[in-house]
Amino acid sequence: MTDLLRGLIAFPITPADPAGRIDERALRAILQRLVTAEVDGIGLLGSTGTYAYLSRAERRRAVEVAADEVAGRAKLLVGIGALRTDEAVALAADARDAGADGGLLAPVSYTPLLDDEVFAHFEAVAAGGLPVCIYDNPGTTHFTFRPELVGRLSRLPGVVGLKTAGAAPDEVAARHATWREVAPAPFSIGYAADWTVTEGLIAGGEAWYSVMGGLFPVPCIAIVRAVSAGDVTEARRSNAEMEPLWTLLRRHTGVRVMYAAARHLGLVDMDPPRPILPLTPPAAAEVAAVIERLGLS
Amino acid sequence: MTDLLRGLIAFPITPADPAGRIDERALRAILQRLVTAEVDGIGLLGSTGTYAYLSRAERRRAVEVAADEVAGRAKLLVGIGALRTDEAVALAADARDAGADGGLLAPVSYTPLLDDEVFAHFEAVAAGGLPVCIYDNPGTTHFTFRPELVGRLSRLPGVVGLKTAGAAPDEVAARHATWREVAPAPFSIGYAADWTVTEGLIAGGEAWYSVMGGLFPVPCIAIVRAVSAGDVTEARRSNAEMEPLWTLLRRHTGVRVMYAAARHLGLVDMDPPRPILPLTPPAAAEVAAVIERLGLS
Repeated sequence: MTDLLRGLIAFPITPADPAGRIDERALRAILQRLVTAEVDGIGLLGSTGTYAYLSRAERRRAVEVAADEVAGRAKLLVGIGALRTDEAVALAADARDAGADGGLLAPVSYTPLLDDEVFAHFEAVAAGGLPVCIYDNPGTTHFTFRPELVGRLSRLPGVVGLKTAGAAPDEVAARHATWREVAPAPFSIGYAADWTVTEGLIAGGEAWYSVMGGLFPVPCIAIVRAVSAGDVTEARRSNAEMEPLWTLLRRHTGVRVMYAAARHLGLVDMDPPRPILPLTPPAAAEVAAVIERLGLS
Repeated sequence: MTDLLRGLIAFPITPADPAGRIDERALRAILQRLVTAEVDGIGLLGSTGTYAYLSRAERRRAVEVAADEVAGRAKLLVGIGALRTDEAVALAADARDAGADGGLLAPVSYTPLLDDEVFAHFEAVAAGGLPVCIYDNPGTTHFTFRPELVGRLSRLPGVVGLKTAGAAPDEVAARHATWREVAPAPFSIGYAADWTVTEGLIAGGEAWYSVMGGLFPVPCIAIVRAVSAGDVTEARRSNAEMEPLWTLLRRHTGVRVMYAAARHLGLVDMDPPRPILPLTPPAAAEVAAVIERLGLS
């Protein structure tokens, strides 16, 4: 298991003004919150971090700010996805030079991609020297990784892990076994889609790629630690307690919920990049009420 | 019916080098071929024109080259889609300033978009003064336009038409009636997905947004003219003759087929932007054989 992709990897939003210029002060405040909670890693510029909507220059600046603020106290994993292969290669080099420990590479698509195209894309990016985690998120990339392709990619030098969505509780163990079969350790297999992750960790997942952990790391870390300690009952109890947060994510999507939550906490005074709109006032009030009810403010 | 969105609108590829710099000479040669055939419009920087993979500067340069080469002999419709609203607004202004007659706006997404978000996105872009055609292409944008949203958008000043995919022959008349009901004339309704379009035109569609027409305009224009003249039998006969081309599009996708075809014709010496790969040699040979068999070289 790679040390880079383990434990709680928290995905913060990337506060930016309407023109896409990053608010360094707000970003530092959010990162400080994560470091203080002792997350294992920070997933900067993930989907919730709106990487797809930011310029190359602003993405580089975000990595520089994060590397400075985090200062080695957590692993720094950075989204390096782009539509063009040459741009993804350049973003990986930028991230490496700016202090990232690894890159998270989604096969972003416009023209739907074929398996051989995704393979060549990953091969080109991974050749740059920054360890790469496969970012499997069909809801945004519209590409579905089949196990055979993950197996091929896992044998590329520099491709060190997979971030994939969990599954229904009764399917997750079989799913995890499928991934593990095509990609043996030390290749890391970890889970996203927060509401599915606890069972993924229990099945053997090594990392939780967490949207909610990007603002509320403490209860997420508690679940990770409970699973590590073999206390499955406690992990499941804590996960059940967080169900109101998972409901928000399923109902209103991660990026919209996390901006509303960050506003409620007073950490940002900004909205997601247009065309994404902030939650309506009733939906934002629902987010605030859940945060208060769970004592997370 | 707007004069902008009618007849055969041909969508050329945008030849560019591996770094994304447009080959002006090759682009002019392709455009000349279309103007000589007397297409009604040119759909520059459509999906087949790989707009999503080109920088703002190169997109502007392509419009300048096209406006100069076409010189008013066909309407110039330009793809102005972008993930960010402010970028789409800027691209529309660039296209207008560089000589475009209209903009083709796809709701490009990463985070899946809500109807109100797409509405606000179109409202912002259409306010810039360039007439806008709604570009409905769920296969690339992953957004599905419902008739109610098209109706709302059609009432925005500056939103002048819809480019949508055709349907199975027995469904196309009902589908066309649905669109027409929410968006009365003079709003233009036209069809893409070449192999479905002839029936769409017969049902009342006013424009054919054609991938194959981007290199082979003559047989496509013949179908448009036959439908206009009321000769449905001749239109269907010509369409049936082109079935081998439609099979190629369905089997290998438009952008990959059109690059192989343009190479076979000796018009370009380039491949699509990576990560999209050129067709394999056997598939490219299949494209060349169809072109020869139909006497289109």
